[in-house]
Amino acid sequence: MAHSEKLTPVLEKIDANLNIAIERLQELLKIPSVSTDPQYSSEVRRCAEFIVDDLKSIGLQATLHDTIGHPMIVATDDSAGPNAPRVLYYGHYDVQPPEPLEEWNSPPFDAAVIEGENGKRIVARGAADDKGQLMTFIEAIRAWKETHESLPVRVVILLEGEEESGSKSLVPFLNEHKKELQADTCIVCDTSMWDVNTPAITSRLRGLVYIEATLHGPSHDLHSGGYGGAVVNPANALTKILGQLHDDLGVIQVPGFYNDVESVSAEQIEQWNSLGDADVLILESSGAKATFGENGYGTLERLWSRPTCDINGLKAGYLGEGAKTVIGATATAKISCRLVANQKPKEIEKSLLAFLEERTPIGCNWTFKSHGTSPAITVPTESKWLSAASDALTNIFPNPAVLIGTGGSIPVVGEFQHILGVDAVMVGFSLDDDLIHAPNEKFEVSCFHRGIKSQAAILEAYASIND
Amino acid sequence: MAHSEKLTPVLEKIDANLNIAIERLQELLKIPSVSTDPQYSSEVRRCAEFIVDDLKSIGLQATLHDTIGHPMIVATDDSAGPNAPRVLYYGHYDVQPPEPLEEWNSPPFDAAVIEGENGKRIVARGAADDKGQLMTFIEAIRAWKETHESLPVRVVILLEGEEESGSKSLVPFLNEHKKELQADTCIVCDTSMWDVNTPAITSRLRGLVYIEATLHGPSHDLHSGGYGGAVVNPANALTKILGQLHDDLGVIQVPGFYNDVESVSAEQIEQWNSLGDADVLILESSGAKATFGENGYGTLERLWSRPTCDINGLKAGYLGEGAKTVIGATATAKISCRLVANQKPKEIEKSLLAFLEERTPIGCNWTFKSHGTSPAITVPTESKWLSAASDALTNIFPNPAVLIGTGGSIPVVGEFQHILGVDAVMVGFSLDDDLIHAPNEKFEVSCFHRGIKSQAAILEAYASIND
Repeated sequence: MAHSEKLTPVLEKIDANLNIAIERLQELLKIPSVSTDPQYSSEVRRCAEFIVDDLKSIGLQATLHDTIGHPMIVATDDSAGPNAPRVLYYGHYDVQPPEPLEEWNSPPFDAAVIEGENGKRIVARGAADDKGQLMTFIEAIRAWKETHESLPVRVVILLEGEEESGSKSLVPFLNEHKKELQADTCIVCDTSMWDVNTPAITSRLRGLVYIEATLHGPSHDLHSGGYGGAVVNPANALTKILGQLHDDLGVIQVPGFYNDVESVSAEQIEQWNSLGDADVLILESSGAKATFGENGYGTLERLWSRPTCDINGLKAGYLGEGAKTVIGATATAKISCRLVANQKPKEIEKSLLAFLEERTPIGCNWTFKSHGTSPAITVPTESKWLSAASDALTNIFPNPAVLIGTGGSIPVVGEFQHILGVDAVMVGFSLDDDLIHAPNEKFEVSCFHRGIKSQAAILEAYASIND
Repeated sequence: MAHSEKLTPVLEKIDANLNIAIERLQELLKIPSVSTDPQYSSEVRRCAEFIVDDLKSIGLQATLHDTIGHPMIVATDDSAGPNAPRVLYYGHYDVQPPEPLEEWNSPPFDAAVIEGENGKRIVARGAADDKGQLMTFIEAIRAWKETHESLPVRVVILLEGEEESGSKSLVPFLNEHKKELQADTCIVCDTSMWDVNTPAITSRLRGLVYIEATLHGPSHDLHSGGYGGAVVNPANALTKILGQLHDDLGVIQVPGFYNDVESVSAEQIEQWNSLGDADVLILESSGAKATFGENGYGTLERLWSRPTCDINGLKAGYLGEGAKTVIGATATAKISCRLVANQKPKEIEKSLLAFLEERTPIGCNWTFKSHGTSPAITVPTESKWLSAASDALTNIFPNPAVLIGTGGSIPVVGEFQHILGVDAVMVGFSLDDDLIHAPNEKFEVSCFHRGIKSQAAILEAYASIND
């Protein structure tokens, strides 16, 4: 594919320096920046400091901002001059917890590079979500600066350390730094491609409600012989209640749950179906033996346009090896709902808690924690920023870029719309089989490499857009 | 109360040496003999060796026998001469796992002696179940030997190290050592009193079926955004299945579950009700705010004569602090059923597994583990051994001994009946609020003290019984 005079040497530099970029990503992945667990707090900070130092070394103005939670990083570059478009980049440097540790083939923070079916891959917690992805635009910026000393557009980078733990600092931070973060467009780099050779831009995100519910019965754990049949067993009661969340056809039974769900147009479904056989991809990448979900909808339709209610954690009684004849004093479930356009997160959370409360067993009580809520998001698909990014991707990858949805949630996209007034272009380079949030998470070196080159191409493409 | 000429100095010695006996029990409790968890194996053995040494120091012939699991201890004393009755004593030196550790007020293997509402108590895993209890007969034997050099009856002690982990060596061991263990009667010391001043002999034990069931869905943990709504979430499915184990009235729904359950006579229920207000005891000792169980039966009736199905452990997805948007690859439940007379353990286990299998969700499969089965037991209440023990207890305690059932299981009692042809007299000194199997397990020093004296009195009472 032919590239412009200015882009060509940048892409060559990216090719030449790929191994150095991989090593730099490995260093970043070795820092266990698990944001959800307080014991990793100092590591999250160390990770932020590592990135700030790196951004400064490229020549960006980079600042670490303390928040009520983990630090925010803001970095800017105005070398393109005052009239160039200003592009906001978003990524997050925090990662999911690595557990269960025993299922990793190499330690989650060793960042081993191994051979896979698509060539080399980097195995680490955070490899694809999101350290490998945020390094695509950082490496692209580095290559542009090293080649031409300046960038084709003005750049402001925002990197968050709380994406995996409810983003509690995000909204106050955006409000406070509104002016500094002002941009003509925004690249959010935290989504997937359709497949290894087919890049994608994501235009639909599901929202999220995440609660933790603990049912309390006796004041302490009881011997199941001495008390079994005499008092409520919270584990029995919890399963009885949670077992009512769905009917046999997978339809969620929380009253009013589907009230604000909009049906998707036949054209939209047609476009999704034209992408290929989603069931094959889903079964291959999940290792599941069958697809399953809300009755009456296809798999992509369920994933991208229907809400869910999933138990993400269950904990009661004895969890160790062997047998213990115990009635646990409490039983806990972590439950999240993925939401779609127009569902109101706070209302859904309220309905879910009411559903549980109404089923409180005799002599028991609940304690609840909220782990955050966010609405579903749709971004406009007719924008010139999106088209230009799509063309840039198509120029780098073997197959043309496609437009997809995602079942996941990226709350920042909604906050950028509401607070900064800017629509995100969601360009990401992970694959469905990257084992995000699971043991042996990986990022393909080919995705990383093409991702960097795509970001370099987007930087140039954006230079010529007048807002 | 007046005691015989031979017993009185024995009881005085027990009083005089109580503190030494407490210290010896503390030493025993400091050995973490958790039999269910392989990482404690060497501690289980160390515990057995400690007891063997102690028994030898009293003058008993004591032997540690290796088994396929943890060691068995057999100790004998024939100082009463060949014509004296032979009494078999049973206890177990292994203990339940101490988890959850953070809920203990003092470390579970520190054996702290603290003040409680009934005077001093010893706090430790195993204090009441069963180390403190087995030391009642060992201390009684010690006091007899120290006072009179010989015992009033011939004694054979069997101490097991696998009671809390399925007793897999018990049956082969009993068969192999049948002759050595032959006895006229048997004291099993692993049950409770009615209250702190009212000793009890237990005549009914429930049986047990304990399984572990793991439901497998995808081959690895999945991101709940990328896959939620596309494939079965094993945690959702498991709760849906387990939620069907009971109806809303607490009646177990496994087909045929109640087929062999016999109803209890009105007289028996009358006798149980005359013991006092069981609900008050249960609520006080459990900290539960209401009693609950199978509809149509009183609390003691449910505990002592009705079967149960309890979830003893639930584990799925993310168990740590905070939120993780994960669909776990598996979801596991530890489930046990307490059985009553005539229910056949293997049939119940089969029905329970079939109940789960019939509900296997699309694309999922189960793996099952059996953690042991044992039938319910009833011992004859008209025996002279039982009457003599009851009188001995009545002579030591403020209140007369009562006849009770227990909701727990002591498989060895059935095996003694079947293999050795001997009925057990179940005399125990723990209390319902001893927090057996729970954090802060304790044993009252007053129970320990009166327990030792009761055992000393039983030794003498048994000397004059002709079988």
